[in-house]
Amino acid sequence: MFANTPKPPYYAVIFSSLKELDDLGYDKMAKKMVELVENQDGFLGYESLRDKNGFGITVSYWRDEESINKWKKNLEHLEAQQKGKELWYKKYKIRIAKVERKYGFERE
Amino acid sequence: MFANTPKPPYYAVIFSSLKELDDLGYDKMAKKMVELVENQDGFLGYESLRDKNGFGITVSYWRDEESINKWKKNLEHLEAQQKGKELWYKKYKIRIAKVERKYGFERE
Repeated sequence: MFANTPKPPYYAVIFSSLKELDDLGYDKMAKKMVELVENQDGFLGYESLRDKNGFGITVSYWRDEESINKWKKNLEHLEAQQKGKELWYKKYKIRIAKVERKYGFERE
Repeated sequence: MFANTPKPPYYAVIFSSLKELDDLGYDKMAKKMVELVENQDGFLGYESLRDKNGFGITVSYWRDEESINKWKKNLEHLEAQQKGKELWYKKYKIRIAKVERKYGFERE
């Protein structure tokens, strides 16, 4: 669901992916990565969806580029990234973007 | 599915929303908006998903802030935005972000 992020500026990592339909250990690793990322310095939250064809969008939010780079180099995350290429993902795109402004709406 | 975007920099509009489960004319309008947006100057593509609970993520990509602002002020789109608040969305967040870098992977 919705990530509660602070006032901009901060960073978004937009991860679009097409996953194999077989699990191949993915769900277990995904749960581990969620637990791990939530304790990363600078991690602000995430929003994530995947459809039945395996296409997914995960947007994670970060305080700054440094915290994104540290997470990318985390040893357990590196192992997950490697398996992602070997086993789980047919294709992915990662876009790193600086959130400049945000607005919203909520029905009363 | 995947948007084919040019080399950064460009802009992303990250639209996270919780929709009512009833249609209330939404699908028809959504189709109209897709047709319309694809002809907007500066529109680069979009990636979109929604789950069965009504939570959705749509990321649209734009050449620059000016093209985002013009789309926001498009008359037919303004009508859709108004109906969005009145009928379709319980809540949404819109984050405007400058894509600074992009990389990806595709299995051979």
